[in-house]
Amino acid sequence: MRCVVIADGKLAVEERPDPEPGFGQLLVRVRAAGLNGADLLQLRGRYPAPPGEPADIPGLEIAGEVAATGPGCLRFRPGDRVMAIVGGGGQAELCVVHERACMPVPSVLDWPEAGGFPEVFTTAHDALITQAGLAPGEHLLVHGAAGGVGTAAVQLGAAVGARVTATVRDERLRSGVAELGAHTVVAPDEFVGKGPFDVVLELVGAPNMDANVKALATGGRIVVIGVGAGAKFELNLLALMAARGAIRGSTLRARPLEEKALAMRGVERHVLPLVEARRVRVPVAATFPLERVDEAYERFAAGGKLGKIVLTCD
Amino acid sequence: MRCVVIADGKLAVEERPDPEPGFGQLLVRVRAAGLNGADLLQLRGRYPAPPGEPADIPGLEIAGEVAATGPGCLRFRPGDRVMAIVGGGGQAELCVVHERACMPVPSVLDWPEAGGFPEVFTTAHDALITQAGLAPGEHLLVHGAAGGVGTAAVQLGAAVGARVTATVRDERLRSGVAELGAHTVVAPDEFVGKGPFDVVLELVGAPNMDANVKALATGGRIVVIGVGAGAKFELNLLALMAARGAIRGSTLRARPLEEKALAMRGVERHVLPLVEARRVRVPVAATFPLERVDEAYERFAAGGKLGKIVLTCD
Repeated sequence: MRCVVIADGKLAVEERPDPEPGFGQLLVRVRAAGLNGADLLQLRGRYPAPPGEPADIPGLEIAGEVAATGPGCLRFRPGDRVMAIVGGGGQAELCVVHERACMPVPSVLDWPEAGGFPEVFTTAHDALITQAGLAPGEHLLVHGAAGGVGTAAVQLGAAVGARVTATVRDERLRSGVAELGAHTVVAPDEFVGKGPFDVVLELVGAPNMDANVKALATGGRIVVIGVGAGAKFELNLLALMAARGAIRGSTLRARPLEEKALAMRGVERHVLPLVEARRVRVPVAATFPLERVDEAYERFAAGGKLGKIVLTCD
Repeated sequence: MRCVVIADGKLAVEERPDPEPGFGQLLVRVRAAGLNGADLLQLRGRYPAPPGEPADIPGLEIAGEVAATGPGCLRFRPGDRVMAIVGGGGQAELCVVHERACMPVPSVLDWPEAGGFPEVFTTAHDALITQAGLAPGEHLLVHGAAGGVGTAAVQLGAAVGARVTATVRDERLRSGVAELGAHTVVAPDEFVGKGPFDVVLELVGAPNMDANVKALATGGRIVVIGVGAGAKFELNLLALMAARGAIRGSTLRARPLEEKALAMRGVERHVLPLVEARRVRVPVAATFPLERVDEAYERFAAGGKLGKIVLTCD
């Protein structure tokens, strides 16, 4: 198979032996694989793949057809359209994944949309619904709302009946985020005074955190998923106590199979029906064939995009 | 009635008009009223009473007999032994409190024990069980374990089947905390390396927090209730994300009646049976009659005590 390989901080496309599905695993013929921040961190040597995953093939989410099934598979058959979160190795023509970490692809999604769906919608659903317990009528703040997780979070927030305020750095993308369901879209330094917020999804990092804590409603929850702009800040515990608030840190990639599988089941129950009803969609900013992976990563790193960058395989 | 009054940063005992119970309220003939850190903060002018509570009479917890009932009371009658959390005004011969914020006094408790029970056991139960979801087999770390909330938390932790590690500054008090059920009792700077911890109860403040975060087990929860030693520290969000951990701030005093009443019901269900079975007890370090309130506050502020300081009224 052809696959993206990271070696010495550079990207290449190489030939590797086809992987073989083990017990309970599917071999997926990858049609599309989304890019995520973690891929960029891995390229820069700052986010090694978890144990048991391909060490040098990036890619955390895939969509494609089942090419073969290992023994003990109960749910999917060859030819089925599936999408999945993987701990690595997704940016390849073939990928092995446990079938419990797979979801069926709704008929309304094309391949690039399906390849850009699993990681960001699972992350957003897990953070907002499972962890923060976002409820109707609550006020949600999403920082970095134009990216993959951000556009998913804005739509899920609106779909569950929350009021959504979003921060977006690139002025040109704000109307697009508003069209996804955000009631208010502002520049990153303009959210102060727009609260209080019941739930804050932090996808940018430390620079927002002091103001996030101060803007929390009583019982408010901050979930931190991305810290690209910095990881350290001075937390005032009295402010957190006054709000009776909580700050959670979260990642998806490092979780064991059973937790990823549970997160998938949550997405199947709560999000796929919204996709099928076209109440949420997967914004794809650009697609690149696997062989042009360098361009894809450059486009991803450049910012200024609404939604996902996705690699495609014919 | 006679009551403790705070004026110009000083304590006095004064005569005030007897309060009258309104709809749903009990007039309680106070027999014992525990001291808490919040009283000391209020004396120092740093913790004003919440709206609707006596502004200058301290005291957050009481035990005594029902002297009279307002209209609409359904549960308690004159003569019943009750204990309660109040937002203020507890250090007085008479105190008015909504009957939903009251609990019956178990027969095994004397008045000083009952007067030192509600605030600290409700705080510890709410933090450990309701908020942190402490479960059997988990590892609990309690900082400042010799005080009122600390001794309650150590016992509740042991009672629910958690392994308890406690930090205690005063060397002389460590064996007493071990007797309450802590498996390991160490000096404040010696908990590093004893983890990982599933739940951390922070009663001291900022100086422990960086090491708390680093010592968190996957999915660990820190609940911060006391910050006497400092409120600000540099939080490393990457460390919190790596643990998929959470930091919560909490206070009891500022909560509305319905939340306090729910917390009381939790204590009635989960803690009073343990008290009746003598599986948890209320350590009282010293009692002082109301008229000697100055001595009581000095003793409280001096530290080096196991459990509660309680004011008594004949």
